[in-house]
Amino acid sequence: MGGVQGMTAVLEAIGMEKRFPVKQQMLLRRRDTFQALQGIDLAVLPEMFCCPYENKYFPEYAETEGGDTWEKCSRLAAEHRLYLIAGSMPERDEAGNIYNTSYVFDRNGHQIGKHRKMHLFDIDVKGGQYFKESDTLTPGDQVTVFDTEFGKMGLCICYDFRFPELARMMVDKAAQVIDVPAAFNMTTGPLHWELMFRQRAVENQGYTIGAAPARDLNAGYHSWGHSIA
Amino acid sequence: MGGVQGMTAVLEAIGMEKRFPVKQQMLLRRRDTFQALQGIDLAVLPEMFCCPYENKYFPEYAETEGGDTWEKCSRLAAEHRLYLIAGSMPERDEAGNIYNTSYVFDRNGHQIGKHRKMHLFDIDVKGGQYFKESDTLTPGDQVTVFDTEFGKMGLCICYDFRFPELARMMVDKAAQVIDVPAAFNMTTGPLHWELMFRQRAVENQGYTIGAAPARDLNAGYHSWGHSIA
Repeated sequence: MGGVQGMTAVLEAIGMEKRFPVKQQMLLRRRDTFQALQGIDLAVLPEMFCCPYENKYFPEYAETEGGDTWEKCSRLAAEHRLYLIAGSMPERDEAGNIYNTSYVFDRNGHQIGKHRKMHLFDIDVKGGQYFKESDTLTPGDQVTVFDTEFGKMGLCICYDFRFPELARMMVDKAAQVIDVPAAFNMTTGPLHWELMFRQRAVENQGYTIGAAPARDLNAGYHSWGHSIA
Repeated sequence: MGGVQGMTAVLEAIGMEKRFPVKQQMLLRRRDTFQALQGIDLAVLPEMFCCPYENKYFPEYAETEGGDTWEKCSRLAAEHRLYLIAGSMPERDEAGNIYNTSYVFDRNGHQIGKHRKMHLFDIDVKGGQYFKESDTLTPGDQVTVFDTEFGKMGLCICYDFRFPELARMMVDKAAQVIDVPAAFNMTTGPLHWELMFRQRAVENQGYTIGAAPARDLNAGYHSWGHSIA
């Protein structure tokens, strides 16, 4: 038990093969990764861990809650008796909206938390990067905190963490750790990634965990691949 | 005019002689400093720039708004045709309450802003530092933003800046720069000072300016003496 400081965590920053169109294969790779890790209490996957980070793939890869990928994540958590923050994946609701959604599973594989990214990342730099999540995604509207044997944890996704108010709302709901599956880009990563995780920890007197995808220079989107705790 | 980026500023981190009991002499030293500086648009003095940072001195050094020190600061601003953020000084109100107050003067020496520290710094570390501003001081309750030819600026004092909500409230009132007279200690200074000023600038997409007193190892309180912009 021993609180947050006694927790063993793994933040996935291992070969993502994001360009690879076969979700199944990605999950199998992840399964190998998990099997190599014994005694881990918490695993955090990065943002869109099973889908290339490109708008055209979000609708194609989207599943409803309880779908195939959800099911496999649940089973992974139960098999390895660990808490699994399943990064994020595109979720389709009954109305057909698509969200950037992170599910959390306990050691029995039961879903104990779910966060839909609230702050969609829209960027349009003249002569630079263009990416608008809002082209395909719908934002969530809930602050997410869940219980673990280590204490309460908050959960938000990538750009959500830019906003200090959201972190503070999680802490006001007693979160001692804030988990952030993310995929910062190669401009903001080196400039802001560590700065933000450190300052949020200081100003909220808690822990922050960021999971970043590994970089795949052949993919359409290059992520700053440094996970942090 | 040219906005904030065209502004020339000086942040006082010059010999403070905080132990020295004669306010008058401190101000005279400052006058010399100012005279050496030509073409400066903005000067920011640090927290409690004219009073040793010890509770016993706050009541003794306290003046009402418009008092002797206020008057001298106003004159300094007018003489040198600059904006002066007069760090902070103990202010006594009509009811006898004492505040940690920063006055702002324009190029004509007119007061255009006033901030009373909202978040009093109380620390009591077992076997370590003890300092409780609340032993003598009363907190303010106003968010402070003022106009300059360079744009609007926000103003808060030292520990106030720990709270991201206050910075955001200033920015919501259109502040492009946040000025922070401060006196971080030798524990929090190296750990948090630069981190906080950088992250606040990033998350509010504006500028932050911190003025710190120079360190006087003979004084009762040792400050992390690195001003920052």
